[in-house]
Amino acid sequence: MRIDILTVVPELLESPFNHSIMKRAQDKGLAEIHVHNIRDWSTDKHRKVDDYAFSTTAGMVMTIEPIERLINHLKSEREYDDVIYMTPDGKPFVQQDANTLSLQGNLIILCGHYKGVDQRVRDHFITKEITIGDYVLTGGELAAAIVCDAIIRLIPGVLSDETSALTDSFQDGLLSPPVYTRPAEYKGWKVPEILLSGNEKKVEEWKLEQAYERTKKIRPDLLDEEDM
Amino acid sequence: MRIDILTVVPELLESPFNHSIMKRAQDKGLAEIHVHNIRDWSTDKHRKVDDYAFSTTAGMVMTIEPIERLINHLKSEREYDDVIYMTPDGKPFVQQDANTLSLQGNLIILCGHYKGVDQRVRDHFITKEITIGDYVLTGGELAAAIVCDAIIRLIPGVLSDETSALTDSFQDGLLSPPVYTRPAEYKGWKVPEILLSGNEKKVEEWKLEQAYERTKKIRPDLLDEEDM
Repeated sequence: MRIDILTVVPELLESPFNHSIMKRAQDKGLAEIHVHNIRDWSTDKHRKVDDYAFSTTAGMVMTIEPIERLINHLKSEREYDDVIYMTPDGKPFVQQDANTLSLQGNLIILCGHYKGVDQRVRDHFITKEITIGDYVLTGGELAAAIVCDAIIRLIPGVLSDETSALTDSFQDGLLSPPVYTRPAEYKGWKVPEILLSGNEKKVEEWKLEQAYERTKKIRPDLLDEEDM
Repeated sequence: MRIDILTVVPELLESPFNHSIMKRAQDKGLAEIHVHNIRDWSTDKHRKVDDYAFSTTAGMVMTIEPIERLINHLKSEREYDDVIYMTPDGKPFVQQDANTLSLQGNLIILCGHYKGVDQRVRDHFITKEITIGDYVLTGGELAAAIVCDAIIRLIPGVLSDETSALTDSFQDGLLSPPVYTRPAEYKGWKVPEILLSGNEKKVEEWKLEQAYERTKKIRPDLLDEEDM
């Protein structure tokens, strides 16, 4: 898959894509990430990409022209499945969206910055508007990195242990059960005996019960009413 | 405010804290960020920080000892308001949490990685467990950067225009109204006439109406039932 990220602050994205899983995915040829500086597509001699908002006292707005030029350039080279805009007033991104997007071919992700992008960009170029949560960030750059990470780790071959992603929280509608590693006792704090029992069936029952109890306590909203 | 971030992949966090708002906040002395490599606190000669989980087939678990040593070291130097663990099975982080945390003095943020941390770390050291959304990431590093960004931009003096954060989405329980900038007409796409009218009262009414309509359409869950 190929992801083109459009931003006015490309330097924010250097380290997230050059380490860990996202680097490994690129090294293995499983994902291609291209970060584009929107300023390079400004025709203004000061490489301006924002301007004052109409009838608003606070904040700057990203202008249409450089974004349109960059998107049109990319679209002239290949087809894109989606042109995504990262914005706090988008649709909340959840694991199911990560699953869906991980199956796509080419994506454009536009990172909102300042007070956001001119509404006409949203009306005419954007196919999906996504928020990663109900809070406001300086810009959509880190949010785009989050979406890429959530998507890319699901591409077969990216994680070293493929079964790993399937046992994550949310994939089965429940939070994960607690995990423990050695030592079995640390300063008097013991691992639950069941995990040392070797009784696989009992262990699986315990895990499911723990996952359910944890979900009910912390995130009852994830459970269907009939499960309660 | 001071934030200590504990991670096994510190290199992921280089660019987010060295550019844009988070850099400016540090340059102005309004926020201090310290990223700690948990491996530096391992007593193992290979700097090991993870081990196989008890009774699980997939994934590694972060061990107690290096984390305990690092947290105890930090706590011996100053008081911390919270020791936060970034994990998909935490409490969802929302704007109100950002507001609250932005008023605190010293925070520790532990980034989950692999299949997570030994449950005993959570039981004995962690005071708050936070998820930034209902999806799974490779690790808590980018999630920690998100939380820091959301918090730090609220510290007075960090944003150049202080009124800016107050008009963000979520601060008044509504999504933001659309924003527009010059040109007033671009390839036949026009800015709504009201915004060019100069009638401030009408403009404010229009913005509130747009904010409400957008919230009702995209995020009805944000509206109280009585508002509907």
